[in-house]
Amino acid sequence: MSKAFIGGTGMTSFGSFPDRTGRDMFAEAGLAALDDAGLAPEDVDEVFYGNFVGTLAENQGHQGPLAAEALGTTAPSRRVESACASSGLAIRDAVRAVRTGESDVVVAGGMERMSNMGTAGATDGLARAADDLFEVRSGVTFPAAYALLARAYFAEYGGDRTDLAHIAVKNHENALVNDHAHLQQEITVDDALEAPEIASPFGLYDACPISDGAAAVVLVSPAYAAEHSFDAGVAITGSGHGGDTMGVQDRRSLAKTPATRDAAEEAYDDAGIDPTDVGLAEVHDCFTIAEVLALEGLGLYSHGEAIGAARRGETRRDGALPVNLSGGLKAKGHPVGATGAAQVAAIRALLEGTHPRADAVGDDVTVGLAHNAGGTVASATVHVLEVAT
Amino acid sequence: MSKAFIGGTGMTSFGSFPDRTGRDMFAEAGLAALDDAGLAPEDVDEVFYGNFVGTLAENQGHQGPLAAEALGTTAPSRRVESACASSGLAIRDAVRAVRTGESDVVVAGGMERMSNMGTAGATDGLARAADDLFEVRSGVTFPAAYALLARAYFAEYGGDRTDLAHIAVKNHENALVNDHAHLQQEITVDDALEAPEIASPFGLYDACPISDGAAAVVLVSPAYAAEHSFDAGVAITGSGHGGDTMGVQDRRSLAKTPATRDAAEEAYDDAGIDPTDVGLAEVHDCFTIAEVLALEGLGLYSHGEAIGAARRGETRRDGALPVNLSGGLKAKGHPVGATGAAQVAAIRALLEGTHPRADAVGDDVTVGLAHNAGGTVASATVHVLEVAT
Repeated sequence: MSKAFIGGTGMTSFGSFPDRTGRDMFAEAGLAALDDAGLAPEDVDEVFYGNFVGTLAENQGHQGPLAAEALGTTAPSRRVESACASSGLAIRDAVRAVRTGESDVVVAGGMERMSNMGTAGATDGLARAADDLFEVRSGVTFPAAYALLARAYFAEYGGDRTDLAHIAVKNHENALVNDHAHLQQEITVDDALEAPEIASPFGLYDACPISDGAAAVVLVSPAYAAEHSFDAGVAITGSGHGGDTMGVQDRRSLAKTPATRDAAEEAYDDAGIDPTDVGLAEVHDCFTIAEVLALEGLGLYSHGEAIGAARRGETRRDGALPVNLSGGLKAKGHPVGATGAAQVAAIRALLEGTHPRADAVGDDVTVGLAHNAGGTVASATVHVLEVAT
Repeated sequence: MSKAFIGGTGMTSFGSFPDRTGRDMFAEAGLAALDDAGLAPEDVDEVFYGNFVGTLAENQGHQGPLAAEALGTTAPSRRVESACASSGLAIRDAVRAVRTGESDVVVAGGMERMSNMGTAGATDGLARAADDLFEVRSGVTFPAAYALLARAYFAEYGGDRTDLAHIAVKNHENALVNDHAHLQQEITVDDALEAPEIASPFGLYDACPISDGAAAVVLVSPAYAAEHSFDAGVAITGSGHGGDTMGVQDRRSLAKTPATRDAAEEAYDDAGIDPTDVGLAEVHDCFTIAEVLALEGLGLYSHGEAIGAARRGETRRDGALPVNLSGGLKAKGHPVGATGAAQVAAIRALLEGTHPRADAVGDDVTVGLAHNAGGTVASATVHVLEVAT
């Protein structure tokens, strides 16, 4: 279908900022995105705001109007919530607002603030992305749930903790030059293997950190771009969304993610591309195994093949398909509601050549992909970004 | 723009059901809506789910996939949150999914469960629809905030508690035949005036109850309807959305609601109608004054005129413009996330002649309106429904 130009992007640094409010962080990200686009608050037609646990972390529901106010506007707004895929969904629904012709300039993004909840509070908050009745009350935390997926994957396709360690090492390495990243810390495979166990087979370095931060993307309609001679280098050309059962106990396989598959197929079809056209990807690596499941669900690797991709170097920055050049959730950080928008911002900067890791993107690469997942991939969004022609 | 046919609607009774889960209630409403439409779970392309405080009330975020599961599908889903306007927004974004041609059959609705939180817990939960930093921490509860609006209205345009009492009496009277209503209790003007004061000038009968319940609407694209000879009696022909500052302290006037005005203007323009075409309305009467503010914001009355409308009989069921024939939030009840969808369901049933108060709708009436508001009208949605021709 019709494209939505990316007019601008913005993000805060990701990290631990317990003394910042959500509205303060979203103001920084959103105003930077508007400034990047050369647009003013009064140009904004709508705001789509992703947030997961602000009702707990800030005692704040109804965050849409606050997000709009943070941008200096009272434009119509809503909060879109889909756990860790909240701003992926915010972008998807924002793309639609542009596609129907109802809006010309839309800000989509999100924010999460969790460090002020403490580790126990944040773990409790994150657990609300799982099924309270059938998972959480059985003692399943998120590291435990993804550990189940890793064990199932190993049993079905092979692979081991060393394969996972190479993913962590790669993403930490990618983040070293990204000043917005939460973790700018080089690690080795041995560091990862020797780290304290958090949920077998995971050690500490198999998990992303609990981060605070915000990110925003300004989308511009083709009609507006033409009328205002708006020069956008990159557009969202495909959008997809998939669903699955909430609880892992209802899945046919714990080693596959059909929500990602469905989202990818829809996005590829929407953009009129094949998986082979994709030259770089930001995928949802909340745990190392999640990067493997994502790459296979996206059709970028066959089942059983992605587990060795980082170890073989294929998804490293000098590989054939660089994955998570931003550092991924693993090292860039994962402020839940901001992640999907930050991924889109990263792909756009990589395609435009303004990202600190842009030197890893070949001149022939014109198509990138952002994959955002909620819960144990009960929800997934995929956006295809292309250099605008 | 293009219309979205209403294929079916469903709702639970509204009331106090602390032992029911949200997924149970949404299953009842959603499956009833699908049954009403003659459609099966596998026909559903997407789910848009409105909910406000489930993160607190049920320890449950990421409710989209649970709502889809309640319908028997893993179709893509998301939660849309805009406080008390959550399912009005869910319907708006669902209409867009149909308009872009990306989906043919969409379920939009919502659920709220608050009685299990206790009165103090529910009051605390509802306060999250206001600005935590600048309103809630100053001691503003929702009855207090709307009481401020009522006092400002009286000061600017006149009116008194007796005018408000007539609104409560009317809406209670309308609900007497609605078996889904939370409050089926006849009251008199004296009852309202003599009720305990909750926040001056409000007495107990100026406020809606805290309710549990769910509601759902099945939307069908024109293309699908044509292909499947789908016979829908009513369509959504106009959709609008407005925003305002979150906190009342930032408003230019406390006696006007520009979010409602903007939503209405957009919806009328979208449907190609004028306010004078509207033959009946369900408006967001969380407090009696809110019905007055809504009718004026919607352009159905001039400023200062709606305060006397119920007293003069004009908005009663035998009046020229029946308002809240369902009983409104006031008497039908207000399970926050379900309210917007329940309003659309009521207007549809009233236009189709299947509602217990349909005898109040003249044969010449073909246009109805549903108005849903979030917070102190920091968000508002308006949907225009028309008899399908």
